[in-house]
Amino acid sequence: MLELNDTICAPATLPGTGAITVIRMSGPEALAITDRLFRSGRGPVAAAAGYTILYGTIVDEALLQDSIVDEVLVSVFRTPHSYTGEDGVEISCHASSYIASRILDLLCAAGARLAEPGEFTRRAFVNGKMDLAQAEAVADVISSSTSASHRVAMTQLKGGYSAELASIREALVEITSLLELELDFSEEEVEFADRSKLRFLLDSASTRVHALADSFRLGNAIKNGVPVAIVGKPNVGKSTLLNALVGEERALVSDIAGTTRDSIEEHVTLSGVDFRFIDTAGLRDSSETIEKMGMDRTWKMLSEADIVLAMLDATDSPASSADLLSSLAERMDFSCQQWVILVNKIDCNKKVNDINKLVLLAENKAIILEISALTGAGLTSLRETLAKLVKDRFSASSESILVTNSRHHEALRLAADSLDAAQNALTSNLSSDLVAQDLRAALYHLGTITGMVSSDEVLGVIFSRFCIGK
Amino acid sequence: MLELNDTICAPATLPGTGAITVIRMSGPEALAITDRLFRSGRGPVAAAAGYTILYGTIVDEALLQDSIVDEVLVSVFRTPHSYTGEDGVEISCHASSYIASRILDLLCAAGARLAEPGEFTRRAFVNGKMDLAQAEAVADVISSSTSASHRVAMTQLKGGYSAELASIREALVEITSLLELELDFSEEEVEFADRSKLRFLLDSASTRVHALADSFRLGNAIKNGVPVAIVGKPNVGKSTLLNALVGEERALVSDIAGTTRDSIEEHVTLSGVDFRFIDTAGLRDSSETIEKMGMDRTWKMLSEADIVLAMLDATDSPASSADLLSSLAERMDFSCQQWVILVNKIDCNKKVNDINKLVLLAENKAIILEISALTGAGLTSLRETLAKLVKDRFSASSESILVTNSRHHEALRLAADSLDAAQNALTSNLSSDLVAQDLRAALYHLGTITGMVSSDEVLGVIFSRFCIGK
Repeated sequence: MLELNDTICAPATLPGTGAITVIRMSGPEALAITDRLFRSGRGPVAAAAGYTILYGTIVDEALLQDSIVDEVLVSVFRTPHSYTGEDGVEISCHASSYIASRILDLLCAAGARLAEPGEFTRRAFVNGKMDLAQAEAVADVISSSTSASHRVAMTQLKGGYSAELASIREALVEITSLLELELDFSEEEVEFADRSKLRFLLDSASTRVHALADSFRLGNAIKNGVPVAIVGKPNVGKSTLLNALVGEERALVSDIAGTTRDSIEEHVTLSGVDFRFIDTAGLRDSSETIEKMGMDRTWKMLSEADIVLAMLDATDSPASSADLLSSLAERMDFSCQQWVILVNKIDCNKKVNDINKLVLLAENKAIILEISALTGAGLTSLRETLAKLVKDRFSASSESILVTNSRHHEALRLAADSLDAAQNALTSNLSSDLVAQDLRAALYHLGTITGMVSSDEVLGVIFSRFCIGK
Repeated sequence: MLELNDTICAPATLPGTGAITVIRMSGPEALAITDRLFRSGRGPVAAAAGYTILYGTIVDEALLQDSIVDEVLVSVFRTPHSYTGEDGVEISCHASSYIASRILDLLCAAGARLAEPGEFTRRAFVNGKMDLAQAEAVADVISSSTSASHRVAMTQLKGGYSAELASIREALVEITSLLELELDFSEEEVEFADRSKLRFLLDSASTRVHALADSFRLGNAIKNGVPVAIVGKPNVGKSTLLNALVGEERALVSDIAGTTRDSIEEHVTLSGVDFRFIDTAGLRDSSETIEKMGMDRTWKMLSEADIVLAMLDATDSPASSADLLSSLAERMDFSCQQWVILVNKIDCNKKVNDINKLVLLAENKAIILEISALTGAGLTSLRETLAKLVKDRFSASSESILVTNSRHHEALRLAADSLDAAQNALTSNLSSDLVAQDLRAALYHLGTITGMVSSDEVLGVIFSRFCIGK
């Protein structure tokens, strides 16, 4: 069990890089501990107002001479107006890892201890400065690398998502209390709650929970990259296409630490959205249709993709192309996947594929684009199409609240299941206490998202994923 | 020519790492530019007092919705009480490289420009917040990785070195003015200046300049590692010794970015001092004494070393060892190098080397230690000896002011040369204007150190070595 009443310190920036290093300290003794090693012409930190800065020196009193460790700025924060809600300071020192470790040593010798990962944010949660969903959004904001993922994380950080959850909870609490009122008087056989009104309220709440749960597919795609599978026969030009798409963006992508980059995935940012292009391979000569080997893997990738780019060779025979499309069409789920047929190699003169026939095959469920990965013809149109597909889904999603966290998705799914059960119970005219039981289960699951219901274990897992100093 | 009257911005910490990123902006428009994109419940930054912090949001007004880029803290500094002496802000945002680049883009769109490397510190120098030697010390403080190098850099940053230079300059100006007074009245053939008093003042100033110039050898060693050459025949145990010394310290050493680590050098920190151990090799079978090949390189390394560890094999014949020591002794400069004879392999029973004979050979100019690099026997004593050798030189150096910068060393050397010439001119009873000319040359060279005399070109070279944001 983590001690939450002592004073913690940690570097908030990476020491040894840049011009300055910021060391953060929070807890009841933060100001007093600072005064043990900080000398300023403006008096002690303990006498300073919140949201002010003092200039001075950090000294090592154990040394008789050369005791100055660094010239620093100390920013003072007072409870409850701080990130954690506790008293706190931020010490800006020169960006030397030697100096940062000296100062941290001195702080610890003066009564602080080094913070665990995420402990500052955990304290902010415990002290009611933010709910759990907002705390988790902090990590998402830090790791967001595109305008779309940043927007989703910032909405969550600013509490937009929490407000929607609170509103749903309120509706469910109202239904539950109506049902429980009925239970209290059940001996008198009075039916207080108007069942059709209850039914209406429940359906409405359930729809909202389902919408949030369903938003995870898009939210997750925005956060981790919209999965776009490229399928086609060897030499149809998949690698050329990938290189053409990645080419201009590679510098941008490599700026971002931790970007997954293996042989079959490439991230490309188009109009502020991160796309994760997946080269599926596995589609061999059309006469064999699809080989057994690698088939499962290919179908799995296809089923997980939000967008499928089916690449055809303009110089290939229409029959062969139709064959490929047919076998794909059998497996595609058009309800949640978007299919784009790319007719490649239009720069070659011996174009034989018949677009009209493809249109029939695609049954208007696919977009058809003619491109040349080699010359770049049609690629601007492809980029715009991909960006538009995601933006359309963005604007279709309710109030741009997207669930991006798999823990939240799981909780919403469980809540949705409980609400489904409650709806069934109500429809089947089961007793009120059974309906109320399902509603309480839904409330519990929703409560875990913002941390109204939480356990030390869950909190430990969530905050241990944070970096030190956050 | 760098524009110094506009407003500059840069990240002061490495974006994308840690918990927060600090973006720094300085210049006459810093507060107004911030207000173009910062919204706070506490009113505009332009109305805030210096040394206060405002909480608020950075917004992108170009966007109709989702315009919040981040929640930030803005620290306000007002001229002249800031690092640069100008108006300035420090914006603490979440540690995302995406957010940092968005904010920098917005600042530039609102009227700032990205700072050149070292431009903040250059402005501090131009605005008289620090002299050139102090500005250069900022870079040294940041890169210092041991307590000794940190102490030297901090003394320089706090102006201790500048004060000594100012005092020497004052003495030289006094002598010069006495001489010039004499020149003004030279027609009247009056000798105002008491030549013996001038001589005394000049000798005193010259001694101080020479002391500073001479301190560079130790200062440079403290900053870049005290060079310790290990010489000995193959298989005498040099690698075993190096591994034993490095072993315990490797984790510490590898913490420090940029540590030179090639096949022949290893850095080890002992008692807060960085030692640079250099494996010279090159000493082959004693019958050939020293091979022509590689000999020059070995002698160069030996001559540059502050400490030479001459390793002998306890099981080797005394004659062979004596041979090695004799050839080394011919080349060693005992006045500025310290010689330590290590009799290794004392764990072997067939010890034959005669310590008494070595003592005679070393003529009391060397320390003799018996060790076993294999078992670790005697290594604590070796570590203590090395640390003590440096600490003795530290305390012997005048007022612990050490010159660590090769630009300063060159200027001090030129100033010392000019003072030598002035002393000679005075001794040879040359005319006062020749003496005064040498003194003015010395004053010029000393002036270049703190930047009293400086050129844009020199400043450009100095500050371009800084990191962005400093």
